[in-house]
Amino acid sequence: MKHLSIIKIFALIIAFSPFVMAGHHSTQEHNSQTKYVSYSKIGNPADVLEVKTEQYRSLDSGEVRVQVLAAPINPSDVIQISGNYGVDAVLPARPGSEGVGRVKEISSGVKSLKVGQLVLLASGSTWAEELVGPAEGFLPLPDLGPIGADVIEQLAMSAVNPLTALLMLNSFEDIKEGQWIVQSAANSAVGGYVIQLAKQRGIKTVNIVRREGLTKDLLAKGADVVLIDGPDLAQQISEATGNAPIMLALDPVGGDTYARLADSLGYGGTLVAYGFLSGKPPMLNPGQLIFNDTRLRGFWLYKWYQTATMQDKQEAFGQIIPLIANGTLKANIDSRYKVEQIEEAVTRAWSGGRNGKVLIVPSPIE
Amino acid sequence: MKHLSIIKIFALIIAFSPFVMAGHHSTQEHNSQTKYVSYSKIGNPADVLEVKTEQYRSLDSGEVRVQVLAAPINPSDVIQISGNYGVDAVLPARPGSEGVGRVKEISSGVKSLKVGQLVLLASGSTWAEELVGPAEGFLPLPDLGPIGADVIEQLAMSAVNPLTALLMLNSFEDIKEGQWIVQSAANSAVGGYVIQLAKQRGIKTVNIVRREGLTKDLLAKGADVVLIDGPDLAQQISEATGNAPIMLALDPVGGDTYARLADSLGYGGTLVAYGFLSGKPPMLNPGQLIFNDTRLRGFWLYKWYQTATMQDKQEAFGQIIPLIANGTLKANIDSRYKVEQIEEAVTRAWSGGRNGKVLIVPSPIE
Repeated sequence: MKHLSIIKIFALIIAFSPFVMAGHHSTQEHNSQTKYVSYSKIGNPADVLEVKTEQYRSLDSGEVRVQVLAAPINPSDVIQISGNYGVDAVLPARPGSEGVGRVKEISSGVKSLKVGQLVLLASGSTWAEELVGPAEGFLPLPDLGPIGADVIEQLAMSAVNPLTALLMLNSFEDIKEGQWIVQSAANSAVGGYVIQLAKQRGIKTVNIVRREGLTKDLLAKGADVVLIDGPDLAQQISEATGNAPIMLALDPVGGDTYARLADSLGYGGTLVAYGFLSGKPPMLNPGQLIFNDTRLRGFWLYKWYQTATMQDKQEAFGQIIPLIANGTLKANIDSRYKVEQIEEAVTRAWSGGRNGKVLIVPSPIE
Repeated sequence: MKHLSIIKIFALIIAFSPFVMAGHHSTQEHNSQTKYVSYSKIGNPADVLEVKTEQYRSLDSGEVRVQVLAAPINPSDVIQISGNYGVDAVLPARPGSEGVGRVKEISSGVKSLKVGQLVLLASGSTWAEELVGPAEGFLPLPDLGPIGADVIEQLAMSAVNPLTALLMLNSFEDIKEGQWIVQSAANSAVGGYVIQLAKQRGIKTVNIVRREGLTKDLLAKGADVVLIDGPDLAQQISEATGNAPIMLALDPVGGDTYARLADSLGYGGTLVAYGFLSGKPPMLNPGQLIFNDTRLRGFWLYKWYQTATMQDKQEAFGQIIPLIANGTLKANIDSRYKVEQIEEAVTRAWSGGRNGKVLIVPSPIE
C-alpha cells in the first residue's frame, strides 16, 4: 500500500513549517562557494533581494547537506518580502518557502536520510544552490520509482499551493460529487490544483479569469466552465450552472470580484478569501450575510502549519504526493531561473500575463 | 418545575412563525367593529399604512377570538413594509409580527385555550384591536401568577428581540463566563437583551453607542463598558478590556461601525450582522479574514423560525419567558399608541433619539 508507506515516512514530520528558517552557520573549511538569496530590508523584492555566497563548511552532528533541485517563487514569498504578510520576516532573511532537493552528504548521527535521496525542503530558505542544516528540516519522499525532471519540479511545489487547494476544498463545506464550486484567478497555480482535485472528486467548477485566452488550458485541466469576470458575473454563473446552489467560492483577488462571488453563493454558502491580489477592499452587502446566510472566511496556510496535528499533516501530504507523482496534480511552469538571476525571476513572478509558476532551478536537474 | 411546564405548554408550537399571517375571513353577523392596520402597497410606512375596520363575525370551528393587549413595532416590520426585507409581504398585508393578547371567545372544537387566558400572538397581523383565527396561531403562556400591565407589555416583545439576542449569543461562538463580547447599537432593544442575558451568564459586554447620554441606562442594565463609536473604536475597546481577545461581535449598523468591530476581534472571532441601520455597506479588509481568521456571519430570525426544530423552539422560549416574567429581561418602552394612531407610531418608531420600543396598546391593559 503506497499510501501507508507514505504516511509512515511522513510520520517524521513533527513541526513541519515551510516558513521557519533553519539555522545556517557559516564556517570556512573549504574553498568551494555556493550562492543563496538574502534580504536585509523590507521592500520591492527586485530591489531588496541580494545574491550572496557562502563558503563550504563541514557538517555538525545531525546535519545534512542538500543540493537544491528546484524551488518556486510563491505569491506569499513576494508578499512577505514586500512587508504585507501576516508575519514579518526576521532580518536578515533568506527567502523561499518550499522546494525539492537531493541529499549530498549526511553527518554521523543521521539515520532518517540517505545520500542520493530526494527530499522536500521543509525549513525554508530554499532560493539557494545548497542547504546545510539539521536532518529534521528535510522530509524524505517515498520511493516513487524512476521519475523525470518534470515530476521533480512538480514535487518542488507540493507543500504550499496543492495543500492550499486541498484544505480549502476540505475545511469549510462538505461539497459532494455533482455539486458546483466557483473560484476566481482560476489560472493561478492554486486555481489549477483546485480544478484537478475537484475533477478527481466529481465536483464541478466554475472558473473565473480576468482575460481571454485561458479557457483551453483550464478545460484541459478539467474545468467545467470558464467565465470572464465582469459586472454581470453572478448572472453568468447562474446561467452556466443552471442556477445550481453554489456552496463554496474561493477568492484570492478581493475587490469587486470578491463581492460578485459573494453574490453568487447559494443560501448558507461560504466564500473563502485566501489572497488579495487586486489590493482593493471589497464592498460588502450586509443583506447577503443576513438574508442569504452568506459566510465569509479566510484561509492562511501558515496558520494551518502552525496548528495542524501530526495526523492532519500526514493525511494532507498522503493525499497530495501520490497525485503529483502520478501526474494527476500539476502546475504550469512559466519559466526557470538560476539563483543569481533572482531579480529577473521575482520581477517575472510578480508580473501579469504569466501562465504558470516561476521556478528557481540552480542547475539542470539530472 | 416551572421550566418543564413551560416546555409542555410550548409543545403546542408546531409551525410557529410570527411572520406568517393567519387567515382572516370577514363576515357580517354583528354590529360591533374592530380596528386593524393594513397596507396594500410597499413604501414609507407612514404613507402606506391604513387603519381599517372590520365587522364582528362568529367563530368557525377551531377558531378563537383574542383581544390584542400589546404589540411592538419592530425594525423588521418597518423594513418589510418599506420593501427592504428578505421576503416580501403578500399584499394587501396586515403588519405586526408579535404581541400578547387575552382569549375572549373560543369555538366548540378548541381544547388548548381557555377564555381569559394570556396568549402570544404567533400568527402575525398583530397591529389590531382583535384577532380571529385558528387556535394554533395563539400560544398559551404558562401560569405566571398575578402579573401587572408592565409584565404583559414585556411579554408582548418576547418572540423577536429576546430570541434574537439569545440565539446570537448561543449559535456562533461558545462564550464562557468572564470572556468579553462587543456589540453596536447597544441601546436598541436587542442590545439591552444581549446585555441582560450576558450579565446573567457572567459574560462581559463592551457596548457601542453613537451618542452621549446612554451610559447610565446601559450600566444599570448590566453593561460592563459603554463606548462612543468613532475612528479609534478598536483602540478604545482594546484599552477598555485590557486587550482581551474578543470572540463575538454583534452589529445591526453596518458601514464603518461594522468594519471597526471586525478590526476589534481576536484571532478566529466571529462578527454577526443582524441589521443594516446605517444603510452604508462596510468596506472589508481581506487581510483580517486571512491573517486574523475573522469570520463574518449574518443572523435572521425569520429563517430560524422556518428551520428550527420543535425542540429548538421549546428550549429557546423555555429560557426567555421565565426571565421576562421575573423581570430579568426587559426592554425600555418609549411610547404607546392606539391602533388608529399608527402613522404617528411608526414615525416615532423609525426616528432617532428614542430610548425604547414603540408599542401598539389598543386600550388600557387590565
